[in-house]
Amino acid sequence: MNRHPTPTLGQGGHRYACRIYYEDTDAAGTVYHANYLRLAERARTEALRELDIPHAEMTRQFGLIFMVRRAKLDYLAPARLDDEVIVATRPLAIAAASVVLVQSFHAAQPPHRTLAVAEIQLACVRLRDMRAARIPPLWRDTLATLAGPGGPRNREEG
Amino acid sequence: MNRHPTPTLGQGGHRYACRIYYEDTDAAGTVYHANYLRLAERARTEALRELDIPHAEMTRQFGLIFMVRRAKLDYLAPARLDDEVIVATRPLAIAAASVVLVQSFHAAQPPHRTLAVAEIQLACVRLRDMRAARIPPLWRDTLATLAGPGGPRNREEG
Amino acid sequence: MNRHPTPTLGQGGHRYACRIYYEDTDAAGTVYHANYLRLAERARTEALRELDIPHAEMTRQFGLIFMVRRAKLDYLAPARLDDEVIVATRPLAIAAASVVLVQSFHAAQPPHRTLAVAEIQLACVRLRDMRAARIPPLWRDTLATLAGPGGPRNREEG
Amino acid sequence: MNRHPTPTLGQGGHRYACRIYYEDTDAAGTVYHANYLRLAERARTEALRELDIPHAEMTRQFGLIFMVRRAKLDYLAPARLDDEVIVATRPLAIAAASVVLVQSFHAAQPPHRTLAVAEIQLACVRLRDMRAARIPPLWRDTLATLAGPGGPRNREEG
Repeated sequence: MNRHPTPTLGQGGHRYACRIYYEDTDAAGTVYHANYLRLAERARTEALRELDIPHAEMTRQFGLIFMVRRAKLDYLAPARLDDEVIVATRPLAIAAASVVLVQSFHAAQPPHRTLAVAEIQLACVRLRDMRAARIPPLWRDTLATLAGPGGPRNREEG
Repeated sequence: MNRHPTPTLGQGGHRYACRIYYEDTDAAGTVYHANYLRLAERARTEALRELDIPHAEMTRQFGLIFMVRRAKLDYLAPARLDDEVIVATRPLAIAAASVVLVQSFHAAQPPHRTLAVAEIQLACVRLRDMRAARIPPLWRDTLATLAGPGGPRNREEG
Repeated sequence: MNRHPTPTLGQGGHRYACRIYYEDTDAAGTVYHANYLRLAERARTEALRELDIPHAEMTRQFGLIFMVRRAKLDYLAPARLDDEVIVATRPLAIAAASVVLVQSFHAAQPPHRTLAVAEIQLACVRLRDMRAARIPPLWRDTLATLAGPGGPRNREEG
Repeated sequence: MNRHPTPTLGQGGHRYACRIYYEDTDAAGTVYHANYLRLAERARTEALRELDIPHAEMTRQFGLIFMVRRAKLDYLAPARLDDEVIVATRPLAIAAASVVLVQSFHAAQPPHRTLAVAEIQLACVRLRDMRAARIPPLWRDTLATLAGPGGPRNREEG
């Protein structure tokens, strides 16, 4: 397996801060591995909201949702109860009907140790029948801005 | 607050066995308190299935679901990773549009120590608009049999 | 079953705002009932932190944690995806080794409809052996201030 | 990203059956993506138990646990409320201090449509300090048998 590109908190993208509660942990004393995906969902939902393209609005207007089609997670250092964690979200690739985000988890305390890195492919699907659909232009173009000047260009797919 | 009637594994009702995994625990080393409600949902869903009145069938035929309207939980002794737990489910009261179940959690190992007791009031509601509805007679009558001969009689409500 | 005292957002106590994500919902389209307990944990943890008596500090200094000993939940109106929810937390009774909190869930939008009300009894226990212990005076006295002038007086138990 | 090898239920390995409850689903009407990791944990825990090398026993004897170090998930078709799902677990690679499992999720009904495929790398770590440790020989050798005759050979890593 190849490694994710090393994320740093210095890069562009969106930041979301969250606290670790008992609900997030398990008997090993650290955050249960599946729960990083829950934190990641919160972070990217807030990223869309702050970009003024809320996910819920895409559903209301177009009957479309982003569904997770693929996820890759590397767990690098454990997060623990009461830690504050920063989730950094930026697009890695944007296609006609899907987008790949890199979401990295960092300790809020300097030196912002990287705790985990997730690469999440979201497919745009119609809620009615779960079939693939094109991402509405407003969402697609706005997502691209999250990457900053050196971010991914939109790739046309068909 | 008044106490629940003391449950014992010797009573009538339905039994459901489940194992405690990391997903169920938290950093205190024991089962996270909210997760007893998840185990309880599994247990009563299987109770309905084994009575041949699956919850999903009530939704398919009538567009109705049981929603939790009220829950009372007493946590008596902690369950831990890898424990096997028995969930005992029996009806306490059956009304026209709601049912109260007692669901108690016991160690699978003798002497079957009681770990927690839940009293769950389920309202029958239409999935479409979440409004209260009468429990279909087949569900209502069959649920009553779960209590055994000394169980609750159906109470008419209006 | 007797009802909780009707909560209003106008009362004293602590407020915590949270957003509903897919992780919180279920196939009925509303918040899964067990997840209110997770939101409640977040809210009271933040209440303690804002009172400058973090839960984690009680564990570090004294090896003590608050464990949920009893929970009563009334579900009054469903919360849905993308809703903003306010969790209001205030003490109902404070004893030597336990505290009862009322935590009510309200729509963030006026008229702040009450969605659910929880009454949570927390026991102070030693993490080492899960045995009951007296709440440290700083925590006990500070919790009492959360209630406001008309709040519960400390009840001595033995 | 390269694809996982296509799994079929006809291969060797361990099978675990589970039912989808409301707790597993979200407002899209399908299983919440993070919850496949919870089902996967249950399945591999039961695989170890049935091989007579329970995870809890490795912790008791050696103070070691398997922690998820990396996870890759492909979501192929949605699972829904009340579906019965088979989780098939087999080792892909076994090293001195880690093991990679393929865990695939299939509809229990023929033709056993593949719903999702996970590739989970577990690191053996000491619970005390979360440092990497060699997998005890009994666990390592027994895991290898799960693959069947054509399974992965043990790879020595220094």
